[in-house]
Amino acid sequence: MPLTPEQQAEIDAQRAAPRETLRATAPGMEAHLYTAQPVLDHGFVRVVDYMGDDAAITQAARVSYGRGTKSVSNDEGLIRYLMRHWHSTPFEMCEIKLHVKLPVFVARQWIRHRTANVNEYSARYSILDREFYIPAPEALAAQSTTNAQGRGDVLEGAEAERVLKTLRDDAMRCYDHYEAMIAQEGQQGLARELARMNLPANVYTQWYWKTDLHNLLHFLRLRADSHAQYEIRVYAEAICRIVADWVPFTFRAFEDYRMGGATLSATALECIRRMLKGEEVTQETSGMSKGEWREFREVIGEGKSLQT
Amino acid sequence: MPLTPEQQAEIDAQRAAPRETLRATAPGMEAHLYTAQPVLDHGFVRVVDYMGDDAAITQAARVSYGRGTKSVSNDEGLIRYLMRHWHSTPFEMCEIKLHVKLPVFVARQWIRHRTANVNEYSARYSILDREFYIPAPEALAAQSTTNAQGRGDVLEGAEAERVLKTLRDDAMRCYDHYEAMIAQEGQQGLARELARMNLPANVYTQWYWKTDLHNLLHFLRLRADSHAQYEIRVYAEAICRIVADWVPFTFRAFEDYRMGGATLSATALECIRRMLKGEEVTQETSGMSKGEWREFREVIGEGKSLQT
Amino acid sequence: MPLTPEQQAEIDAQRAAPRETLRATAPGMEAHLYTAQPVLDHGFVRVVDYMGDDAAITQAARVSYGRGTKSVSNDEGLIRYLMRHWHSTPFEMCEIKLHVKLPVFVARQWIRHRTANVNEYSARYSILDREFYIPAPEALAAQSTTNAQGRGDVLEGAEAERVLKTLRDDAMRCYDHYEAMIAQEGQQGLARELARMNLPANVYTQWYWKTDLHNLLHFLRLRADSHAQYEIRVYAEAICRIVADWVPFTFRAFEDYRMGGATLSATALECIRRMLKGEEVTQETSGMSKGEWREFREVIGEGKSLQT
Amino acid sequence: MPLTPEQQAEIDAQRAAPRETLRATAPGMEAHLYTAQPVLDHGFVRVVDYMGDDAAITQAARVSYGRGTKSVSNDEGLIRYLMRHWHSTPFEMCEIKLHVKLPVFVARQWIRHRTANVNEYSARYSILDREFYIPAPEALAAQSTTNAQGRGDVLEGAEAERVLKTLRDDAMRCYDHYEAMIAQEGQQGLARELARMNLPANVYTQWYWKTDLHNLLHFLRLRADSHAQYEIRVYAEAICRIVADWVPFTFRAFEDYRMGGATLSATALECIRRMLKGEEVTQETSGMSKGEWREFREVIGEGKSLQT
Repeated sequence: MPLTPEQQAEIDAQRAAPRETLRATAPGMEAHLYTAQPVLDHGFVRVVDYMGDDAAITQAARVSYGRGTKSVSNDEGLIRYLMRHWHSTPFEMCEIKLHVKLPVFVARQWIRHRTANVNEYSARYSILDREFYIPAPEALAAQSTTNAQGRGDVLEGAEAERVLKTLRDDAMRCYDHYEAMIAQEGQQGLARELARMNLPANVYTQWYWKTDLHNLLHFLRLRADSHAQYEIRVYAEAICRIVADWVPFTFRAFEDYRMGGATLSATALECIRRMLKGEEVTQETSGMSKGEWREFREVIGEGKSLQT
Repeated sequence: MPLTPEQQAEIDAQRAAPRETLRATAPGMEAHLYTAQPVLDHGFVRVVDYMGDDAAITQAARVSYGRGTKSVSNDEGLIRYLMRHWHSTPFEMCEIKLHVKLPVFVARQWIRHRTANVNEYSARYSILDREFYIPAPEALAAQSTTNAQGRGDVLEGAEAERVLKTLRDDAMRCYDHYEAMIAQEGQQGLARELARMNLPANVYTQWYWKTDLHNLLHFLRLRADSHAQYEIRVYAEAICRIVADWVPFTFRAFEDYRMGGATLSATALECIRRMLKGEEVTQETSGMSKGEWREFREVIGEGKSLQT
Repeated sequence: MPLTPEQQAEIDAQRAAPRETLRATAPGMEAHLYTAQPVLDHGFVRVVDYMGDDAAITQAARVSYGRGTKSVSNDEGLIRYLMRHWHSTPFEMCEIKLHVKLPVFVARQWIRHRTANVNEYSARYSILDREFYIPAPEALAAQSTTNAQGRGDVLEGAEAERVLKTLRDDAMRCYDHYEAMIAQEGQQGLARELARMNLPANVYTQWYWKTDLHNLLHFLRLRADSHAQYEIRVYAEAICRIVADWVPFTFRAFEDYRMGGATLSATALECIRRMLKGEEVTQETSGMSKGEWREFREVIGEGKSLQT
Repeated sequence: MPLTPEQQAEIDAQRAAPRETLRATAPGMEAHLYTAQPVLDHGFVRVVDYMGDDAAITQAARVSYGRGTKSVSNDEGLIRYLMRHWHSTPFEMCEIKLHVKLPVFVARQWIRHRTANVNEYSARYSILDREFYIPAPEALAAQSTTNAQGRGDVLEGAEAERVLKTLRDDAMRCYDHYEAMIAQEGQQGLARELARMNLPANVYTQWYWKTDLHNLLHFLRLRADSHAQYEIRVYAEAICRIVADWVPFTFRAFEDYRMGGATLSATALECIRRMLKGEEVTQETSGMSKGEWREFREVIGEGKSLQT
């Protein structure tokens, strides 16, 4: 269970005390505030604060473009226009602050997104809890045989059992030793900043993470993508659900233009033009490498099923 | 007058409609929201939105440092500790969004602070208003004779009159021509993106500017400093007054450790140690250059008055 | 002429003295070093320093992806793969430092690209030269009647003459007054930091600008685009020619995937799939707005000419 | 031993082949290029590339400040002036690219410095080596009893032996299991991106890390400081030795103004002024908290020894 009773009580107290503000509020976001969305076996995402809404984006765009933006009939149309033409600064006018509990190996991928503010729990100062990510059986994937970074089939039977037992046993043993090294009766106790090095990368950490909406959407595009590692993708998907409630116009435009869209090269566009004129284009005549051609066929809906 | 009646009406409407929120609110900041603080002759600063308060800073610090921070007796003490030891990330947990109207030459200095989000009025799309900064008589300074970048005495008499007349006349004439080039009866009209190049750097622009508290304080340290150009300093000072109401503990710590503090070199610290032991230290025996020695004497309160 | 004889002599001296280095060198870039590429009437771009080459990008990618990248047959193939899949960090391993002379209104657009290092000539300390951008006759465009930010036909005849005369006269008069205010016999002289406000936005400034290749390509994608203002586009195009000589594999991939490519929405991709299956799709049945449909038709080569 | 024979052969080859360049070169840095400086038991730092030298800093400053900087007699004086007055942009004109091998828990601290470019070895794609950091006996510190984040005495005797044995055994066992899970005969093998979660935080990783000199000095100020964790401090110290050879003027100024200097609050400066006038100031009359007073006394050289 991700939250202690004390934490839950604190959340309940925070949710029980509305205050008055003159700021813009997003009703969909108020409903999320402080509540923890469970992710993986011990993790969570919860909104701690936010700034702005869909209207804040169009307001900023209208400062920039002046009366010109009036001609776009409505807020959703303007947001779609901004998204389509890669106008990033209006989306930077919204901000979100999340409290996230996540395994260290996920945190290591996540932190690579540099344009964000972070306060992470410090294992130099404080003692980490005995909480480790152990994959659910359906997430226990084999190495892909075709893709160096990917996952293949789900492990089953004796192999699955052995892997899960290994992960659990090693985590528990390492944590036992971590505790023992830190404070052993009648001994000095190893410095926390050293002892933590004995903990494997599936131990949970937590942080406050704050970023603007433009950079958040960039994070989501990469991490909610089907090529992202499952363990970070489930966090990205939980955040997607929050963003959909926070800035619904923006999220719909994001789904259409980014998540569901694709960037085609000059070569690929030329192929489409030829195909639309009736020409039969093959990999050999496309000007693309085999890898590009395979990806291109998937994008235009002639992917795997036709390759069989 | 910086605001049009329409803008003032919009502000009044926004201030008249409080909403409920579960987020942290800063009462001192709610009082500022939307209201324009006049700066220079046509400029202003107004708070459009904010995130967080003093408690948000200590909350983030406590996530990082865990129980260790409990030993610091109270929030103000903890904030002072964080400021003193250059812990920047907790201060990044607060965010502010300002609407600023400012002369272009001030905007050019301001934009050099890169860690911020900006939406500026676009003179490619829209037509700039006929508003130019003309210094008040007491701000009409001569070039310093001792400091390449500084100001000397205030200009007076005929010279002052001539300068003010020149600034006014050139601004008006350039604006007349800007208007004429854009749209002259029976003509096509020059593209706005070209016509704007005829406007001098004291023309007013405006933008939405959003940044976190850590970067804001860095901006204020440099721009509210006595060495900053007067025309940007008055903006920084207006923002200081807002920050003092927003996060009072933080602002007091900032005044003590940053605005009123000084960084001393190893050489300077060694001089202080020698002086405290009773040694008479001169520039020659200090190990400092003349410039450093002069600055050092000012810092330790033996500055100009003793040099006469 | 953009360079003084002293500057040219300095460039000649720098180019005459090769040194030995163990670093990676890019022969195409060595040929550019220090030489000024003229842009507009008084501007230039010149390479002052650089770090890395195409091989530095694949080297960094191979650190990240280990042996997996060996399977990609060669450096150009790997670079294309990285570009296609938006792997940005390997491209950040190259760096360029440019010395640019440019009109202030161009500098104001340019500086919005925040991930760069900049040292600009300071008009607080120093006196600006009497150099202003005056458009060549073929760049003297009218305001577009269909696009709020765009240019229409080139101005001609009396209107063109009047505009050019106005731009020239106002620039010269403002500069005369700038000089006079700074230093007039028997007077104190206005502070430089104030006097500069009388100069219009076509005055030239200069800076050192340093950025990594990933952010440079992002800059070029936006600023070498046909929608960018002509006066910044010619700088971007000059830099494109430099980058093509510096990292030829990267630049070719950039041209194919970015400059010549296009991002299609989920809706647009679905239309292509329907069209490839033989369905006749119209704006009404496309699910797109009129604006999106028009842009879509241009991308798939059925643009303006077919709409007549 | 940190480098494989293949890596050493590659380094020897790179060092054996000087090339001609027209760029600025730093002789002290050429001597470092490619060579690995050992750090900890298996780690290293090595310079892969660099841009600029001390002269590049003053060159950029002179672009900004024009003729004004001529009055500062020489390059070292100008660099000291820039450092003293926190002019950061000229130092951003130099760039360094390092190849670093380091334990994961050190990498986690290091990556918090966001203004840098990083390509890290990916344990999603590739298999990590069996290399773990095991502290040398003299680095095996107990938890400080007075400082939540600090180290106390070195562990000795049976406790030290037990801790070292635990760290070694857990690392080896976890790695054995990592290997076994990835590929066990007759089984599918767990995906690498999952198996890596079984490795403790003292496993070594490696990356290319590129940053500008200003941000590097900021990193060194925090991480070469005596309060930094020993395991990252030794990396910072190794880099300090490199920087001292690269930009000697800058490094000397950095040592004087940053590493050896101190920032004093307004309150502390006022105390110094009173003390210099002969007043006896105590904590009670200082206006400082006990913690501040203790730190202040250390700075002015009346620290611990006087408190006994």
